[in-house]
Amino acid sequence: MTRSILIKGAELAGVPTDILTEGGYIKQVSASIPVAAGIEIDGRGKAVIPGLINAHTHAAMTLLRGIGDDMPLMRWLEEKIWPNEALLTHEDVYWGARLACLEMIKSGTTAFLDGYYKLHATAEAVEEMGVRGVLSCACFDRFDPVEAERGKREVQKLFAGTDSLHPRIKFALGPHAIYTVSGPLLQWINAFAQERGLAIQIHLAETEGEVAGSIKRFGCTPVRHLHRLGALSPRLSIAHGLYVDDEEIRILADNGVKVVHNPASNMKLASGGNFRFVQMRKAGITVGLGTDGCASSNNLDMIEAMKLASLLGKVSRKDPEALTAGEMLTAATESGAEILGLKAGRIEAGYLADICLVDLNIPAFTPNHNFVSNLVYAANGSCIDTVICDGRILMQNKTVPGEEEILERVKAIARKFT
Amino acid sequence: MTRSILIKGAELAGVPTDILTEGGYIKQVSASIPVAAGIEIDGRGKAVIPGLINAHTHAAMTLLRGIGDDMPLMRWLEEKIWPNEALLTHEDVYWGARLACLEMIKSGTTAFLDGYYKLHATAEAVEEMGVRGVLSCACFDRFDPVEAERGKREVQKLFAGTDSLHPRIKFALGPHAIYTVSGPLLQWINAFAQERGLAIQIHLAETEGEVAGSIKRFGCTPVRHLHRLGALSPRLSIAHGLYVDDEEIRILADNGVKVVHNPASNMKLASGGNFRFVQMRKAGITVGLGTDGCASSNNLDMIEAMKLASLLGKVSRKDPEALTAGEMLTAATESGAEILGLKAGRIEAGYLADICLVDLNIPAFTPNHNFVSNLVYAANGSCIDTVICDGRILMQNKTVPGEEEILERVKAIARKFT
Repeated sequence: MTRSILIKGAELAGVPTDILTEGGYIKQVSASIPVAAGIEIDGRGKAVIPGLINAHTHAAMTLLRGIGDDMPLMRWLEEKIWPNEALLTHEDVYWGARLACLEMIKSGTTAFLDGYYKLHATAEAVEEMGVRGVLSCACFDRFDPVEAERGKREVQKLFAGTDSLHPRIKFALGPHAIYTVSGPLLQWINAFAQERGLAIQIHLAETEGEVAGSIKRFGCTPVRHLHRLGALSPRLSIAHGLYVDDEEIRILADNGVKVVHNPASNMKLASGGNFRFVQMRKAGITVGLGTDGCASSNNLDMIEAMKLASLLGKVSRKDPEALTAGEMLTAATESGAEILGLKAGRIEAGYLADICLVDLNIPAFTPNHNFVSNLVYAANGSCIDTVICDGRILMQNKTVPGEEEILERVKAIARKFT
Repeated sequence: MTRSILIKGAELAGVPTDILTEGGYIKQVSASIPVAAGIEIDGRGKAVIPGLINAHTHAAMTLLRGIGDDMPLMRWLEEKIWPNEALLTHEDVYWGARLACLEMIKSGTTAFLDGYYKLHATAEAVEEMGVRGVLSCACFDRFDPVEAERGKREVQKLFAGTDSLHPRIKFALGPHAIYTVSGPLLQWINAFAQERGLAIQIHLAETEGEVAGSIKRFGCTPVRHLHRLGALSPRLSIAHGLYVDDEEIRILADNGVKVVHNPASNMKLASGGNFRFVQMRKAGITVGLGTDGCASSNNLDMIEAMKLASLLGKVSRKDPEALTAGEMLTAATESGAEILGLKAGRIEAGYLADICLVDLNIPAFTPNHNFVSNLVYAANGSCIDTVICDGRILMQNKTVPGEEEILERVKAIARKFT
């Protein structure tokens, strides 16, 4: 018998519901499922939501959480991030990524799109922790043809090793940004991804400085630069996308490019507060949500990300009706799944068995006039009680096996950072 | 022997520290206190912070949490808030306020400045839950002299009943706003408060509409209107204060007026995102933080309020160095205490024994390069493990006695709201 889980009587859209999973997929969702399953979970007093999807992060940067806050970007990078990143070993990245996975599980995230060095260390962590990861390999040449060749070899080498990756893990490409990756390398990466069916993510249109630099260097704005290079496609997601005009939104939509909004990072680094969620959605663009890495944002709580995105969107547009709770939940589930290329983000037969149970017996859900509103506006990641990914239980009663060891190991590793 | 608590080995500014409380006050803070106390708490693996202070809320509005979100202000008030508030009984407000106190305790808040109807119902809840409340009686006349006289009688009657209030509870005055309270009534309230040494709070300069209305009706902006009425004083705190120019900041500072910033509410209702924290602090104004009521913001988590205030301040000023984590913690502790008129907000001998222990064995504090940064930027209210107020333990191991009953009662009451 394949592994199966039966959740009994959890609230789905306010109605007590049974959910049966089998072999990693949701098999049945209905008022009552009178079968025996390998594992039965009492869902009473809990609500079911799809596992959340963090569509932009740098998992192992948990190691640098809080090491340089309230600092301007360049001083932060030069004094705190780059010198400490130079110290990172494979083992460090592995434990940093395990901590990230732990934190994601505890706050209801079952899949993430990552970008970092030492990809195989992150892959090991993801495999062991039981979540899903689309891991993009960090890539840049700083406009140096020698570095570009080295970068291509690195990508080819990493890709060659992807046969051994667990099915929950996908390899992707992560050209860093247009100010660190040359046009020819961006075109090579795009071709490499198209031929092999890989996702690509890039930081784009994140700051006013980047836009000014793009105009100076390339004679056009960031989106137009990628467009001229022929590097826009449905395989691409751009992280941030804060500075895009109406025509660029149309260009992104026409090319099926997806966008990931990272409100905490954009606010904390003061990158900008006018993410054009409403216009992008109207144009038909898939918009997901991310937390960015812990060195900038400083946690991986996607429930907080939903709240921040909504509140920032409302205040910046001067419109309390914009960016509703429901739209945020869609962005953090279905849209994220689309960006990661997963059949996930819905509680429906045939979808991946990536499921969270929310504890309703806490103040945030009392009273429960509107569950989605309470989830997005009143709760935070600590409301998650149970997490299932790929049809396996990763957390029950808010406890993940092995938590203590992860915290201890990271504390020990972190002593070398300054 | 008076009641005493000895906290052993909790981290204070990164150093293991013993803290002795006696009879409601902190008696001693040092590396090691070798005495016996009535109760001893093992503080290892925890950090100590002062109890947080929510300087603007409407406690019983927990009852309406999530009942009308993503709506424009007037439709929200007319369709959702006012009709449901008309149904509120003394018993409803009592249970709503108990839920608010529970939520505050669970997220580390030990004192709050409230404004609502049926003040004695809230007072009963505060007394039983063990926190501190400065309870302002809601007051307005809508520019009708008959209503003004009724309002004065109500204030006098409520004040006459304050002899019986528990010492943790203080009576205050809460004229609603300048668009609902006439000049003469504001002057009467000010005189009443000055004679009896009471605090006053008012919603002021919250929206652009309020400013426009003030100029139209009174020929000047909200702060100037109160100034001309002679109603500015160190007893006054203004909630919101989003729309104040440089001269008004000087007027507020010169008159010792305090300001309470409510970032979640200001963002969610789209009131405005440019709270002038830096300029106010530079002018010497005491600035506290509040959550506003749960019908607008939708929780009472002061750790979230600190993060929102900082992130919103950074992005709106385009300055990642502004509104530091340390400044936010001061606003939520010492400044709040000053606004409420309490000798609280510091872990120091002679201060009130209002103390929280933070659980350091969670991802948000791993690694712990910078505790205050982790508290403000990575954590949320769920990191609070232990809460002491007035020298009594209100929560240990994240559990408050009687939680279940409060949740159940509020669920039952809330069924009548639509």
